[in-house]
Amino acid sequence: MSALLGAMEAGGTKIVCAASKGGEIVAQTRIPTRGPDATLAAALAFFEAVIGEHGDLSALGIAAFGPLDLRSTSPTFGRLLGTPKHGWAGTDLVAPFARRLGCPVVIDTDVNAAALAETMHGAARGCRTAVYVTVGTGIGGGVVVDGRTLRGSPHPEMGHIRVARHERDAAFPGVCPFHGDCLEGVASGPAIVARYGAPLDALPSDHEAIAVVGHYLGQLAANVLLMISPERIILGGGVMSSEPLLRETRTAAARLLNGYGGYGASAASLEQTIVAPGLGERSGIVGALVLAERA
Amino acid sequence: MSALLGAMEAGGTKIVCAASKGGEIVAQTRIPTRGPDATLAAALAFFEAVIGEHGDLSALGIAAFGPLDLRSTSPTFGRLLGTPKHGWAGTDLVAPFARRLGCPVVIDTDVNAAALAETMHGAARGCRTAVYVTVGTGIGGGVVVDGRTLRGSPHPEMGHIRVARHERDAAFPGVCPFHGDCLEGVASGPAIVARYGAPLDALPSDHEAIAVVGHYLGQLAANVLLMISPERIILGGGVMSSEPLLRETRTAAARLLNGYGGYGASAASLEQTIVAPGLGERSGIVGALVLAERA
Repeated sequence: MSALLGAMEAGGTKIVCAASKGGEIVAQTRIPTRGPDATLAAALAFFEAVIGEHGDLSALGIAAFGPLDLRSTSPTFGRLLGTPKHGWAGTDLVAPFARRLGCPVVIDTDVNAAALAETMHGAARGCRTAVYVTVGTGIGGGVVVDGRTLRGSPHPEMGHIRVARHERDAAFPGVCPFHGDCLEGVASGPAIVARYGAPLDALPSDHEAIAVVGHYLGQLAANVLLMISPERIILGGGVMSSEPLLRETRTAAARLLNGYGGYGASAASLEQTIVAPGLGERSGIVGALVLAERA
Repeated sequence: MSALLGAMEAGGTKIVCAASKGGEIVAQTRIPTRGPDATLAAALAFFEAVIGEHGDLSALGIAAFGPLDLRSTSPTFGRLLGTPKHGWAGTDLVAPFARRLGCPVVIDTDVNAAALAETMHGAARGCRTAVYVTVGTGIGGGVVVDGRTLRGSPHPEMGHIRVARHERDAAFPGVCPFHGDCLEGVASGPAIVARYGAPLDALPSDHEAIAVVGHYLGQLAANVLLMISPERIILGGGVMSSEPLLRETRTAAARLLNGYGGYGASAASLEQTIVAPGLGERSGIVGALVLAERA
């Protein structure tokens, strides 16, 4: 009999929960992200119902927004650290599930889990090193090296790097409560709405937002290539569903790299390197299942 | 009888060659870096003399400036790629040694080797993840994750990331032939001389160069922490021998991080994270020996 595995992807707007048996999804639900108590209680209720119907869970994998304390020896392991997300700082994402579900619980960041899923089943299959970046309400990146996620101390938070400003965007102060005009402060979904009054997909396809936001995301992509040298950078998240933005990001990255270090100097040369997710919006929940499989 | 190991650190101004037996250095030399033919011939002559005196080499480790082709399946494996270093682009650093010395040759970047040496014997002992950055004629960084260096595709070249300009340094165009005002273009030794007419150690300790260069290196350090999350960043190289610059780099990094993600918001909180090399100027050659040991 194959093991029953639980998976939870905790995002800023929704929590996706799933259970799988023998590689098949046997149950799935979406819970809107409200306060931590009500939201986690709903997730627990889902898994208890799964157990009631299918028997004990072998393991639960959690892929969560961060920043998270992932140091297994830390007294606050599994908790959210200071986060702009109201009410969630300090929330323990691991202990309540381990206690109530009676199974091993493995946690990683949503983007690390997505990077893992993409290297195993998606756009980075066969890559030794891959980076998954989500651009949405927030910006975050996950890193896989040799089949393991980079968890470091604490863990990558590459949405908050400083970027050089676009010349037509010098006055915008940025929206990050910690850093103002860090990458997330100038290129996330909320930054686009704050600056242009609408999300990217509601703006004309020749709107200057593409050039400005692409300039910033191209800096992230170039920095990732120069600092981590992955074989693949996967750009996911709601903002990245814009095909012109993905192209502009490649163009800006190529312009910055300028042919250095074995990278081509044209956007076309980065087409195999900077790509859309192979798993679409499912990278996170598939990654959570991979975490559970490995528990 | 313990193995005889060879090590070569190829730098922009000098090549250091050494041989060790049972953990003791039995021979060492320094060769000024001129054109590739004469320089590599001198290095080969050193190792042939070592073999003549001590017997066959078990392995040679090479730690070299880059960018290098480190993909073992590539037809140009072991060669320098396009480099600002005159005459060296395309030079094969591996095959001539393997052919003439008849032993396995292992190559990695100088900074990857230094990072390896520091995790094994220096300031990053016990760290799962560490980054070594050299700031000198050029700027480069090496990464160790779980005892292995990050070699990616091609390999980290973090000296060439884009940085936000210091307000008192907006007019300086930078000296990087590839990127103008990338990090190396504004914070390397030559950039300091181009801007201020003298190297850092010849300027007064309250000179604004410290604030300007520290602002740029602090961006690198903050980016490294946000993108790779190492437990330790080791800052080596000639420019970093300035103690005020190391302090200013911590201050600038702390200012940028602003308490996010578990990092402190004060320079003091980064004192254990951003550090000087434990092996002084020997990180590179010790790293080359580690490469040979592992061959």
